[in-house]
Amino acid sequence: MANQRPKAIIFDIIETIFALETVRPELVRLGLQASDLETWFAFGLRDAFTLNATRAVKPFPEILKGALAQLLAKRELDPPVEDRERVFEAMRNMSAHDDAAEALAILRDANLPVYALSNGARASTQSLLDNAGLTHFFTDLLSVESIDQFKPSKPVYDHGVAATGQRAADVMLVATHAWDCHGAKMAGMQAAFVARGQVYPDVMVAPDLTGVELLDVAHSIVNLNAPAER
Amino acid sequence: MANQRPKAIIFDIIETIFALETVRPELVRLGLQASDLETWFAFGLRDAFTLNATRAVKPFPEILKGALAQLLAKRELDPPVEDRERVFEAMRNMSAHDDAAEALAILRDANLPVYALSNGARASTQSLLDNAGLTHFFTDLLSVESIDQFKPSKPVYDHGVAATGQRAADVMLVATHAWDCHGAKMAGMQAAFVARGQVYPDVMVAPDLTGVELLDVAHSIVNLNAPAER
Repeated sequence: MANQRPKAIIFDIIETIFALETVRPELVRLGLQASDLETWFAFGLRDAFTLNATRAVKPFPEILKGALAQLLAKRELDPPVEDRERVFEAMRNMSAHDDAAEALAILRDANLPVYALSNGARASTQSLLDNAGLTHFFTDLLSVESIDQFKPSKPVYDHGVAATGQRAADVMLVATHAWDCHGAKMAGMQAAFVARGQVYPDVMVAPDLTGVELLDVAHSIVNLNAPAER
Repeated sequence: MANQRPKAIIFDIIETIFALETVRPELVRLGLQASDLETWFAFGLRDAFTLNATRAVKPFPEILKGALAQLLAKRELDPPVEDRERVFEAMRNMSAHDDAAEALAILRDANLPVYALSNGARASTQSLLDNAGLTHFFTDLLSVESIDQFKPSKPVYDHGVAATGQRAADVMLVATHAWDCHGAKMAGMQAAFVARGQVYPDVMVAPDLTGVELLDVAHSIVNLNAPAER
């Protein structure tokens, strides 16, 4: 069956809209390698998913702080707390990807309502979007805080879908993380993968769309056939 | 309340009993950095926990293959399949930590039954223990395969506890992974953390015991007060 155009779009935020690259030099300043950005974030997700699986969720920044402490110890580094804090300051000041505004404008011009759904806190998501001048593109910012679970758990996607007022099959998640696209697919949604050179693993449910950048994904979405009226 | 000596011990296998260090040079041969060992394994756990959360579990080696493909693409490397396979061959030939046999002997001499519970397959766990001459220390090898979930999900620990015939509170998990100790604690078990220089994150439930190496943990366990008879 050919894909049908979704009636609402839910965007992941960290890495999908905002680049973690501003954080990389701060990790190097702590003595870590540039390539440890991926290690740190993977440690953070591993631990977030652990807390999720045991229904013992903590705020994502606290989890990332613990992940940084684990990574620094693994690399036998022990920088002072104030130096570590610069990593999180850089994260609060992430820049949007160059094509984010144009991609969001394409969806707006196609009358597709757009929502944000991050594993981060609502307030920090709001702040990132405000600083980047992107808030006006979003119909609403949805928070995992009200669910007390993280993506890729189904209740989080269900919460996002409910906010759009659409059926899950008519809502598309856009993310640059395979694990997030997989979670959305398992929750009955459509999913678009922003690849940026990444490989999508075979063990996960494939996305409906893959684009190299946000702009490719936005173009692909509006080029899908409109859903049949019910 | 002082800790009481457990009546049975469940060991994690990969990294806890066997060192991943044999894999590190194989990653370097693929063009990755030595420090990418941690990145690769964290990618694998992140993806395993994703599949766990969505009840779409696949065998752990397949997940690790997907994690390696993602990491290689992230580092803009594309080695041939047969070169990648050497990583998994090295993993099948991991060596036990130097103090594993002595630690297991201490527990045996204290009449504490010992079980293995890995997120890996039963067959590969059996093969690792056989090659290392450690099988005779184990009362049984328990498998996540019969549960179709991974640690840190509670049903996996429940399965392990049931096999020991003891109450969860009288069974101790030994692992060098904070996420595994946390999972055991959340399932009502005791947990011992083999630190090996690692930091245990604040966001997780603390273990009952921490030792630098397996031998420290084994000594600490047998030095605990014996549980009261019921």
